[in-house]
Amino acid sequence: MSSAKKKSDGRANQYAYPGLDRVIHERARLSVLTSLARYPKGLRFGDLKSLCGLTDGNLSRHLQVLQEASLVEVEKGFEHNRPQTTCRLTGEGHKRYVEYLAVLEQVVRDAAAAVRDGSGAVRGAKS
Amino acid sequence: MSSAKKKSDGRANQYAYPGLDRVIHERARLSVLTSLARYPKGLRFGDLKSLCGLTDGNLSRHLQVLQEASLVEVEKGFEHNRPQTTCRLTGEGHKRYVEYLAVLEQVVRDAAAAVRDGSGAVRGAKS
Repeated sequence: MSSAKKKSDGRANQYAYPGLDRVIHERARLSVLTSLARYPKGLRFGDLKSLCGLTDGNLSRHLQVLQEASLVEVEKGFEHNRPQTTCRLTGEGHKRYVEYLAVLEQVVRDAAAAVRDGSGAVRGAKS
Repeated sequence: MSSAKKKSDGRANQYAYPGLDRVIHERARLSVLTSLARYPKGLRFGDLKSLCGLTDGNLSRHLQVLQEASLVEVEKGFEHNRPQTTCRLTGEGHKRYVEYLAVLEQVVRDAAAAVRDGSGAVRGAKS
């Protein structure tokens, strides 16, 4: 059995991470969802934009994707006679964000182990 | 000062994560780079495909992006008279993967704190 064959034996999909939901994983949407998880009563559009460092256009576009996936709800209303948009996580959004977080924690553990064991493999080969 | 104003004061870009390099963050490429970090002497195309759970076409496409970003090198050679493609991290790729990992660890800490503090805020509001 070749060494390459051994490497993949029993390790198929070891680093595949199907639970790394693409709707949540995208960088800007991860920022939006983390902000909304922190403020579950909701955030105004401007505050969310600031926390995430996004432009109006970018935030609107990503909120649309998150609404279509039922992860976020957007409420348009008035405050002091001025239009106000409030965004918050749905129950489904909270649940899926927590599930995603568990997968992301596994990725970080695997990545740290890969760097550590990989460096060890190189040192081992040189000694 | 409104409560929303207070929320964003001094917290601009708190969840922006500019270090979450999009070339690395994409799910399939994160799988590829984690596999190659684990096996720094290189992996055959077929082993890499298996570890990442990708199709030939998908893996080829993502390897191209990673090569163009100088994160991965691909060597075409022969083994036992059969064509063999070997992929490995470049020095630059290893460095940027480790930097990305530090940012990802911060994301996980922030996300866990957001879920914890956010749940606390809701409990606090209800009590």
